[in-house]
Amino acid sequence: MMNIDVLSIFPEMFEGVLGHSILKKASEKGAVQYNIINFREFANDKHQTVDDYPYGGGAGMVLKPQPIFDAVTYLTEQAKSTPPRVILMCPQGERYTQKKAEQLAQEEHLIFICGHYEGYDERIREHIITDEISIGDYVLTGGELGAMVVIDSVVRLLPGVLGSEQSHLQDSFSTGLLEHPHYTRPADFRGMKVPEVLVSGNHKLIEDWRMKESMRRTLNRRPDLLENANLTDQQKKWLDKLINVNE
Amino acid sequence: MMNIDVLSIFPEMFEGVLGHSILKKASEKGAVQYNIINFREFANDKHQTVDDYPYGGGAGMVLKPQPIFDAVTYLTEQAKSTPPRVILMCPQGERYTQKKAEQLAQEEHLIFICGHYEGYDERIREHIITDEISIGDYVLTGGELGAMVVIDSVVRLLPGVLGSEQSHLQDSFSTGLLEHPHYTRPADFRGMKVPEVLVSGNHKLIEDWRMKESMRRTLNRRPDLLENANLTDQQKKWLDKLINVNE
Repeated sequence: MMNIDVLSIFPEMFEGVLGHSILKKASEKGAVQYNIINFREFANDKHQTVDDYPYGGGAGMVLKPQPIFDAVTYLTEQAKSTPPRVILMCPQGERYTQKKAEQLAQEEHLIFICGHYEGYDERIREHIITDEISIGDYVLTGGELGAMVVIDSVVRLLPGVLGSEQSHLQDSFSTGLLEHPHYTRPADFRGMKVPEVLVSGNHKLIEDWRMKESMRRTLNRRPDLLENANLTDQQKKWLDKLINVNE
Repeated sequence: MMNIDVLSIFPEMFEGVLGHSILKKASEKGAVQYNIINFREFANDKHQTVDDYPYGGGAGMVLKPQPIFDAVTYLTEQAKSTPPRVILMCPQGERYTQKKAEQLAQEEHLIFICGHYEGYDERIREHIITDEISIGDYVLTGGELGAMVVIDSVVRLLPGVLGSEQSHLQDSFSTGLLEHPHYTRPADFRGMKVPEVLVSGNHKLIEDWRMKESMRRTLNRRPDLLENANLTDQQKKWLDKLINVNE
């Protein structure tokens, strides 16, 4: 079972997300255990202060080292597993990818540290962090949403969490191409019709159509993905045709 | 006031995130109104079905067009503002950036559509969507977390939502460089000390140190950002030195 600890001064933010859907089921199945900790409880002054003014001046507050050092030490000793990955959610971190999710899914114990508006004292970064992660190039209020994103992407990879149907969908990402269009009933919705090939019953034609559409969409939207995609000779021919049409 | 509608079959997932911190304060201040709708309520069959099998076969379910078309039509008519941006959260969408957040923050009405495991019927994409957004290259269980990320990044840009101190922090991202290290008290924490320059009281030296560290971090972690950064002549000189040291 994977242990996931989260340090945040807004622990209630996690309830809705961890309490529904796959993340809830994963915990019910015993694949993962969540532990959301308000690290204010580890502050050793009487006002339970977690931040303070920055050395050198300037606006904004900085998270103090003591509460976070002590919380991580406590959680590491509690778990008694292999050393945890201690993950700082921050804009300076490495950009998160599916490959990183697959790596983290191999671990027994993850600890997430979420700051809120403030910066982190650099000694936290230097001495107790194993990974710094950014989920994208945009500014968020705190690390909480980023931690939820990483947790969702990791937990769904744990053995037994997804049903076979959902797993299949997930696998379709590993082709390295964007997905083809999907259609369901009715075949004619207010005058908008599904492509005829999909109701033809000809599986070979359907498969070819899907692959071509998948390549067309990838070419139009994310040509960078095609560079690393593992294409068959047939697929390469289609791609050449698509490129010639676009030019 | 901005109106934000979210269509999801897991509306409870949003409570924790929208009910705390800046997102809650923004709503209390009247800068934004959230409306989380279970689009199952718009399904017009007696079982309130929102998905169905894909035409052409294959695993996974596909979100039906009817409930989502009718929900978006209803919400658009209710709001009576300028036409809404109707945003589909999906892995095939454009990669989300701070620039996009700034654009969306100019709007009066945003509608987010969140699917869960399933694909979307392509007619939804073709006929009612104005924007398709992906928050990053990783696989999530549903669109809900992505919608929360976009909402957080947009709402904090609305006038009056952030205090001046927080605004300042946000501005520091617009330099195009990663932030310099931060330190707070104590100056000596369990033998780990803050850099002497920060306790020197010399503001010019502190400012130079911060800019150099900011450039060093950007060079080491995200050299791509330096290409678009607006550097002064002094900064360019420092950068050249840093590059020579690294080589």
